[in-house]
Amino acid sequence: MKTIEVCLSPALFQYKTTNEDYIVVIVDVLRATSAFCAAFDSGAESVIPVSGLDELLTYKSNGFLTAAERDGNKVDFADFGNSPSIFLKRRLDGRNLAYSTTNGTQAIEKAKIAGARNIVAAAFVNIESACNWIMKQQKNVVILCSGWKNTFSLEDTLCAGAFVEILVNTNLYKHECDAAYAALSLWKSNKNNLVPAVQHASHYKRLSAKGFNEDLGYCFMLNSSKALPVWTGECFNDLSL
Amino acid sequence: MKTIEVCLSPALFQYKTTNEDYIVVIVDVLRATSAFCAAFDSGAESVIPVSGLDELLTYKSNGFLTAAERDGNKVDFADFGNSPSIFLKRRLDGRNLAYSTTNGTQAIEKAKIAGARNIVAAAFVNIESACNWIMKQQKNVVILCSGWKNTFSLEDTLCAGAFVEILVNTNLYKHECDAAYAALSLWKSNKNNLVPAVQHASHYKRLSAKGFNEDLGYCFMLNSSKALPVWTGECFNDLSL
Repeated sequence: MKTIEVCLSPALFQYKTTNEDYIVVIVDVLRATSAFCAAFDSGAESVIPVSGLDELLTYKSNGFLTAAERDGNKVDFADFGNSPSIFLKRRLDGRNLAYSTTNGTQAIEKAKIAGARNIVAAAFVNIESACNWIMKQQKNVVILCSGWKNTFSLEDTLCAGAFVEILVNTNLYKHECDAAYAALSLWKSNKNNLVPAVQHASHYKRLSAKGFNEDLGYCFMLNSSKALPVWTGECFNDLSL
Repeated sequence: MKTIEVCLSPALFQYKTTNEDYIVVIVDVLRATSAFCAAFDSGAESVIPVSGLDELLTYKSNGFLTAAERDGNKVDFADFGNSPSIFLKRRLDGRNLAYSTTNGTQAIEKAKIAGARNIVAAAFVNIESACNWIMKQQKNVVILCSGWKNTFSLEDTLCAGAFVEILVNTNLYKHECDAAYAALSLWKSNKNNLVPAVQHASHYKRLSAKGFNEDLGYCFMLNSSKALPVWTGECFNDLSL
């Protein structure tokens, strides 16, 4: 039987006793990993996570499309912000998208620094697609919640709990840490009222105040995407294709 | 209206935007803050949290009683481990107890480093006593879960959720962060089956395997203690007296 763990903040990932053989599931429901799925659904060839804006600017000058967000706002020089609904309105066929956000790309960086080789970007929108891929790998799993500037986020933890439920229900996985049990319990007691629950989340309120209501609708539509953004060494590619 | 926040690990405390005027509630259900209460109920005059064992040895050679635990085990040179049930069996009248543990005293140290001036040690056993004191202070509150070696712990988060429920129900406090909402939700969905829930906690399993069943019974008896261990500048004193 394989194990499933949850890490509630990138700042806690260093305390997990995982190894490079684990699958690391990066979850940033609002909005990076949801947006990755939308970009692939619009035909993007690859998504390249980039930590810093200087590096992103270099990608831009080399002809890449760029997406960048800080504190919920689009970065001026980038082609896109972090808005999945924008990606769904514009075809990105065959384009490579360099991507930098406040939390999601930082979590990916933490996983890479820790030596993770099996990284999948996931959210509510592609949970079934991601779980099907995870089960084929037959490896231990850690779900890394991107949070908000290293603090706990409700929506990522609920999504982690949904992953735990699906995987544990196969009887092929058991939850291994306190955070996985807590995320599962939190998910079970809120899943039938998901949107009212996430309206308590600080980042939901922040995005709502900024007028991103279309994104908020998209990010909580379970299985609206078939995308399977898996890290292939240099970038994420959509392995569902 | 005052705010109530929850910090799920000492490693995340640096990301909280609290200030020195906040009340910091240190929670280490298994077992340090439960044991502080037991020590005061047995007549201890003060509890002095100590981070390192070298420093603790100095206290011992200066005539202090000492309690020390690492990884759940009593440290050889100390008079006591971290077992509340032992304190309840032996009177400590008027004695000063220097205390060092894996998690609880480290969390206290984090709060002190952050400049906290209003620190109370609390657990399920003294939740009513602690909440009554908190309400008299009329300050914002952050509950700092001690966790296990900087990782999330289920029992501390459930206890934090119980604090949130009591304080929010007064209508004098509102939960301010995602972690406070999640802890409250977790508590509400598990409080009627508290012991079965905490049996999923890794530290509960660890202590059970070591035979500390009497402690496990004590630590989940709500309001079995009137103790109110409040930081008074150099040590904790029982302000209930």
